[in-house]
Amino acid sequence: MLIHEDRLLPADPATRAVARRLYDTVKALPIISPHGHTDPSWYAENQPFPNPAQLFVVPDHYVFRMLYSQGVRLEDLGVPTVDGAAVETDPRAIWRRFAGHYHLFRGTPTRMWLDHAFATLFDLDQRLSAVTADLYYDRIAERLARPDYRPRALFDRFNIEVIATTESPLDELRHHRTIRESGWAGRVITAYRPDPVVDPDFAGFVANIDALGTLTGCDVTTFSGYLEAHRARRAFFKAHGATSTDHGHPTALTADLGPVEAEALYHVVRTGRATASEAELFRAQMLTEMAAMSLDDGLVMQIHPGSMRNHNPALLARFGRDKGADIPTRTDYVHALKPLLDRFGNERDLSIILFTLDETAYSRELAPLAGHYPALKLGPAWWFYDSPEGMRRYRELVTETAGFYNTVGFNDDTRAFPSIPARHDVARRVDCGYLAELVMTHRLDEDEAQELAHDLAYGLAKAAYRL
Amino acid sequence: MLIHEDRLLPADPATRAVARRLYDTVKALPIISPHGHTDPSWYAENQPFPNPAQLFVVPDHYVFRMLYSQGVRLEDLGVPTVDGAAVETDPRAIWRRFAGHYHLFRGTPTRMWLDHAFATLFDLDQRLSAVTADLYYDRIAERLARPDYRPRALFDRFNIEVIATTESPLDELRHHRTIRESGWAGRVITAYRPDPVVDPDFAGFVANIDALGTLTGCDVTTFSGYLEAHRARRAFFKAHGATSTDHGHPTALTADLGPVEAEALYHVVRTGRATASEAELFRAQMLTEMAAMSLDDGLVMQIHPGSMRNHNPALLARFGRDKGADIPTRTDYVHALKPLLDRFGNERDLSIILFTLDETAYSRELAPLAGHYPALKLGPAWWFYDSPEGMRRYRELVTETAGFYNTVGFNDDTRAFPSIPARHDVARRVDCGYLAELVMTHRLDEDEAQELAHDLAYGLAKAAYRL
Amino acid sequence: MLIHEDRLLPADPATRAVARRLYDTVKALPIISPHGHTDPSWYAENQPFPNPAQLFVVPDHYVFRMLYSQGVRLEDLGVPTVDGAAVETDPRAIWRRFAGHYHLFRGTPTRMWLDHAFATLFDLDQRLSAVTADLYYDRIAERLARPDYRPRALFDRFNIEVIATTESPLDELRHHRTIRESGWAGRVITAYRPDPVVDPDFAGFVANIDALGTLTGCDVTTFSGYLEAHRARRAFFKAHGATSTDHGHPTALTADLGPVEAEALYHVVRTGRATASEAELFRAQMLTEMAAMSLDDGLVMQIHPGSMRNHNPALLARFGRDKGADIPTRTDYVHALKPLLDRFGNERDLSIILFTLDETAYSRELAPLAGHYPALKLGPAWWFYDSPEGMRRYRELVTETAGFYNTVGFNDDTRAFPSIPARHDVARRVDCGYLAELVMTHRLDEDEAQELAHDLAYGLAKAAYRL
Repeated sequence: MLIHEDRLLPADPATRAVARRLYDTVKALPIISPHGHTDPSWYAENQPFPNPAQLFVVPDHYVFRMLYSQGVRLEDLGVPTVDGAAVETDPRAIWRRFAGHYHLFRGTPTRMWLDHAFATLFDLDQRLSAVTADLYYDRIAERLARPDYRPRALFDRFNIEVIATTESPLDELRHHRTIRESGWAGRVITAYRPDPVVDPDFAGFVANIDALGTLTGCDVTTFSGYLEAHRARRAFFKAHGATSTDHGHPTALTADLGPVEAEALYHVVRTGRATASEAELFRAQMLTEMAAMSLDDGLVMQIHPGSMRNHNPALLARFGRDKGADIPTRTDYVHALKPLLDRFGNERDLSIILFTLDETAYSRELAPLAGHYPALKLGPAWWFYDSPEGMRRYRELVTETAGFYNTVGFNDDTRAFPSIPARHDVARRVDCGYLAELVMTHRLDEDEAQELAHDLAYGLAKAAYRL
Repeated sequence: MLIHEDRLLPADPATRAVARRLYDTVKALPIISPHGHTDPSWYAENQPFPNPAQLFVVPDHYVFRMLYSQGVRLEDLGVPTVDGAAVETDPRAIWRRFAGHYHLFRGTPTRMWLDHAFATLFDLDQRLSAVTADLYYDRIAERLARPDYRPRALFDRFNIEVIATTESPLDELRHHRTIRESGWAGRVITAYRPDPVVDPDFAGFVANIDALGTLTGCDVTTFSGYLEAHRARRAFFKAHGATSTDHGHPTALTADLGPVEAEALYHVVRTGRATASEAELFRAQMLTEMAAMSLDDGLVMQIHPGSMRNHNPALLARFGRDKGADIPTRTDYVHALKPLLDRFGNERDLSIILFTLDETAYSRELAPLAGHYPALKLGPAWWFYDSPEGMRRYRELVTETAGFYNTVGFNDDTRAFPSIPARHDVARRVDCGYLAELVMTHRLDEDEAQELAHDLAYGLAKAAYRL
Repeated sequence: MLIHEDRLLPADPATRAVARRLYDTVKALPIISPHGHTDPSWYAENQPFPNPAQLFVVPDHYVFRMLYSQGVRLEDLGVPTVDGAAVETDPRAIWRRFAGHYHLFRGTPTRMWLDHAFATLFDLDQRLSAVTADLYYDRIAERLARPDYRPRALFDRFNIEVIATTESPLDELRHHRTIRESGWAGRVITAYRPDPVVDPDFAGFVANIDALGTLTGCDVTTFSGYLEAHRARRAFFKAHGATSTDHGHPTALTADLGPVEAEALYHVVRTGRATASEAELFRAQMLTEMAAMSLDDGLVMQIHPGSMRNHNPALLARFGRDKGADIPTRTDYVHALKPLLDRFGNERDLSIILFTLDETAYSRELAPLAGHYPALKLGPAWWFYDSPEGMRRYRELVTETAGFYNTVGFNDDTRAFPSIPARHDVARRVDCGYLAELVMTHRLDEDEAQELAHDLAYGLAKAAYRL
């Protein structure tokens, strides 16, 4: 049996019994997925997933970074190269390599997500290994060919009430339009991710702004025209269901420059020759500008700082971005957010959701900030911390200072579609286990825990993201 | 039932049994409260507390910051404005707003402290909510009018052996004199908190030093006269029971300047126009000067660094200091304390108690420092970490390197009088739970745990603060 | 009874049963000790240890730093002074002082290690205290005089399969030669620790390089000659069994200078008048040079950064290095290692083992780095964290991101010979407890945990250090 019905619930029998009661009331709740990176073309085109390797291995940096760290070449896993140099194309060969190294994932959330999908979607009950590789491959391949394994069928089966994807301002949201016009009832919305036109270090930044001008008809030669173009695209995204924006900056720095300074800085970054500190200042200023726009149009603002992207230059050159070489760094919030908070922190109608990859900030900075400023809330444990221990530390470090109601429930943040139910299930189990311990130690009554379990699994995400 | 007799004890039955045995031997010990911020006029004048809102809501930044973070206006909670602009004056209306939002405190220590007071002082046994708001209000108001709910009666009921308040060097300690002269047996002592005359960024710093000169008759136009004035006030405080000093600096920086440099720096800060780094250097130098004086007069020195005060300028302008907008920052000790330690770290007769709001420093810096230097000890988990998880992490991060005997027991650090028994009770329960786990995992024998439980609840604080 | 057979296993009965089953399969495995600081002359000369104080107190900075922190003078513990000033010479008097303060070690790993040695080596079953001091002293002294308590007999009794010591490049490895030529079967190898000739801040650095030139016949007036001398000494060490190098730098900084720059920097540091930043840059450059050599000669590279050595100048002047005054500092890896990783991070034949004294780096930096780069692995919890809670946090913070197979098992890093079995036993127990909780929460099957318990206790260290 790959997954146990009591997995992740506390070991102590009495505590497990409470956790079990809580979990039973939330396990079947619909999934609210307000932040993620699934591909909208899946839902628009509803084509079958090609094969087991393309579904589980080739696109998932959680999976191949671990194999790579233990000496498996990315070429041998079929990861495409930037220059089109040949890589493994046989999906069964890729799958066998993956299966032969499956023990590397022991103790990791990746293992739990995969086993959950193997068991619940593909009715597999033996452990994946070199021995069972072909059994797995054949079973998964056979199922993927069936109509009830196409994206929309899985969407329904996963009980997804709403899912957000993430698009660039330059995206025309064609897939979202197709979905809407198709008459299919699934709710797939977009989110506004302006990094390509906000971050001077983003590849193609100058051309991206030109394209933004063309797309909107705004005069992007001036800062005010550029801001106007953002407003236009935000309205367009909102018309396609967006309720939020998303900002993946290297730091949490914000700024609040005067109009003259801001205009001058814009002209510098527009040249494509900004220094590192000018680029940082422009990103900082744009967070504050985006907060101002959010106050107007009601889009919830998400700040995801602290990842040093593309730490491995040789890998970047050969395979491109998002290949498991983004490494977290120490992240300051108290000083970095102050300019933005000085201007908007007391706004009760603004909602800014903060994430971190630096767990030290939870109890020291983020919980005290969110436990004070009306405009701030805390996003869930993210990325490397989307894991049982990560979630547990999150609750232990955050709750005593910020409470539960300055947090926003769970989001999966994934591009791995079959992992979505598993990820939400892990969060529900870990949260119920945490609540059960509060009940067992008489810090909370069970009826309160019941209410909280529902809020953490469903209600808070829906409210925080205005869904 | 609001509070359970086994609250906060470990869930595992065998571990709980050990914890229970330990706790039973310390639960009734007198309270040693060597550091806090209760108002000495309460004990001097012994007037009734005015009403439930003024007792529990209006003055407690733990309470109103949480309500504020969720959109409740401070005006609606009766928090007074700096300019006297009108705020809510109806205590029952304030109380109802508080009660209606009581669920926000789920999982927080504030909730535990409040429930403890509600249950033990006011015999309430239903949960506070919008529904029970008036029941609570009436019960509390009725009791507060009784003579046995006046401050001195509560002091006795709380079984407080000694409590320290905190005063500025400019304070004439009138209330402490009144207490002493009243013949009341309660032991209320002061502590020397020189920030107003040591921190160039403190409001009124220059005038404060002038006042210090007037008060002491010392020539505060020179650094040596200024130091002499400190010595005089420390002696005055000591005569009023003080056994400690307290230093609330933004960082832990210390310095050890030569006399010429120090004198020159003093003249710069005396102008009221010191730069940020000059102000920081002066505070740093004064920590070392205070350590020198402590070596002479035996006052225990407490350093409470790492809070960025008044992070929210709009709130500061409207409501003043201490309104829940002080946010912790990353704090270095290893480099910062070195100048002071180079001079005094090996002194066995000096006692410096270090606190932190940056938990990362416990295992990395503070425990190794306290586990080596004779002059250093570690204060308990503080402020946001005066909480079950905070205390637990403190023990887990500190004990293996510094042991128990380089720590100083618990202090409540509170201005919320009715929370004092609850806070000490939480610490006793958490410590007994921690000790019980050491016993259960055979890292400690139960007779040793027994002795330690007593030390942590009572003995260490008394010894460390020389009480 | 000083040690309990279930010590350190989880308190929950069902979890303990699993942990017990796991532990029973690994408790008797031979000890692989790939990194430590025992004295090779012990094994070479096989002389009796002189007395209880010289065995347990005088040379162990874990022990005397704690006593010192509580006011015991190092002179009274027999710690020798630099200038030969008189210190206590009566071992029984030293032992009694130690015994009288033994309660200070409650809750520390030192206590567990000592009790383990007292019980298993000396058949003591009462707790050490002032009362039992003489009983202990006599028993231990009596046993130390027996042939089966000589170093080689203990080595066999401890079931050590291989132990590494650590030597300077200037060491002629005389003791290692003696051991080898003696015909004794014990495997004692060396490790290459070049700090004395790599760190410009090391005492005698310039003269050390001169000596290196003399020893190797290389022309150390040029950087390339100096590197050649390293290569020669590494080969010499390798011939004496070395499989690893060890680098104890204050930070993890690496650099990758061009040859002209590197040569110029070498000439600066050779003058003995390098600035702090030049010294730091030279150490940084040398880590990259050492990685290059490791790629050639196959020696595994260990980086142990983050200790600020000799924090207490008065103590250093009186008693010398390694007296318990080395204090950890915040340590960055993401930026610091980048130059080295840019050049060698993707090498599958290079093995760099990273250690830390800054636990915040585990989940934020080290696990993500080791979970990506083929050249990187993570060393075990080290020094202050060679402890039950430290090891536990290590597993919780590392496993979910890096898995188990990017870690390298346990090493004891000790100079306290009798503590070696205790330290490995603690690691085996804590790891089995951690694995048991994964089993109980169904994150791992028990047969996998079984396999992992063996790997963590034995297999990973052997493989990672190429033993």
